[in-house]
Amino acid sequence: MRAAMELFAEKGFHATSVAEIGDRAGIQRGALYYHIGSKEELLFQVRRGYTQLMLDEAARIADGDDEPVIKLRNLIRGHVRLIIEHRHEVTIALRDAGALTGERAADLQVLRDGIQRSWQRVVDDGYAAGLLRTNDHVVTKSVVAMLNMVSAWYSEDGAYGPDQIADILTTTIFDGVAAPAGHTRKG
Amino acid sequence: MRAAMELFAEKGFHATSVAEIGDRAGIQRGALYYHIGSKEELLFQVRRGYTQLMLDEAARIADGDDEPVIKLRNLIRGHVRLIIEHRHEVTIALRDAGALTGERAADLQVLRDGIQRSWQRVVDDGYAAGLLRTNDHVVTKSVVAMLNMVSAWYSEDGAYGPDQIADILTTTIFDGVAAPAGHTRKG
Repeated sequence: MRAAMELFAEKGFHATSVAEIGDRAGIQRGALYYHIGSKEELLFQVRRGYTQLMLDEAARIADGDDEPVIKLRNLIRGHVRLIIEHRHEVTIALRDAGALTGERAADLQVLRDGIQRSWQRVVDDGYAAGLLRTNDHVVTKSVVAMLNMVSAWYSEDGAYGPDQIADILTTTIFDGVAAPAGHTRKG
Repeated sequence: MRAAMELFAEKGFHATSVAEIGDRAGIQRGALYYHIGSKEELLFQVRRGYTQLMLDEAARIADGDDEPVIKLRNLIRGHVRLIIEHRHEVTIALRDAGALTGERAADLQVLRDGIQRSWQRVVDDGYAAGLLRTNDHVVTKSVVAMLNMVSAWYSEDGAYGPDQIADILTTTIFDGVAAPAGHTRKG
């Protein structure tokens, strides 16, 4: 899988052949299809890997005993950390997102829906407790999407590490960009 | 270009041939390459088209005479409107984002950087005027990314139209998700 992701990064998914992946990984031609299957299968395995990790983390936090605001903070921090840890796979996989279709695309969608549901449960609880102003799905989806996109712009050479980015975005998500006493805050 | 986008949507970018695009558009074989060029060129033209529209809109708002908070509201509304109007092109183009490389990818990056710079100018002005709590680039990038991703989940059958989505996300961006008097707000 590492050899496949390296080649997808260098040449693109569509220009990479299974044979090249086998060569890079040092797998003999006879064992190639047994171990590798199709390159679509490899791309699927990579995407399923980090998506499942994100779902496990989100479900664990949502199922915990903390209060909703703490859970939401932990969801943000956990998602940013995992997105940054797996940013190379996320970036490569999303660049050719259309390469997965049918059952594989549907399987990934199930995992992504599970992540979304874990977040929504926490947001619903926070809203019911009067701690959040909204539990609108548009907001929950947009917040998760914003955190996913950290993978697109994060750089190791940038000013901030994962925890600092999580802190900055936690403030933005909870309190917005308007200055606390801004007279135009409500427009 | 419409024929190309239809085919990219139906079969995927890599499985579509220039000849099929010509057939769909009713262009004779002789004129095919003259009018169509490569399918990469078509994908580039489509992506440049809506990205340039977004840049023009953002630059127009940033260059205007309104105060920064009004400009930021208008940036959000304009971006959401254009992303939703062009959501099919955005979705298809991003599904095979890796299909554009070299000069075409660089040209698109220049336009996207221009969009980002227009937003950052407005945010910098709002921060300097004490109306926004931050002008951190992480926040500006994340807000634009969140709005771009509306194209991924927007549905005509959904509960909200473009203006309602813009209103909901404007509140989220300015005021956050924490309840106004929530005792755990700074938690």
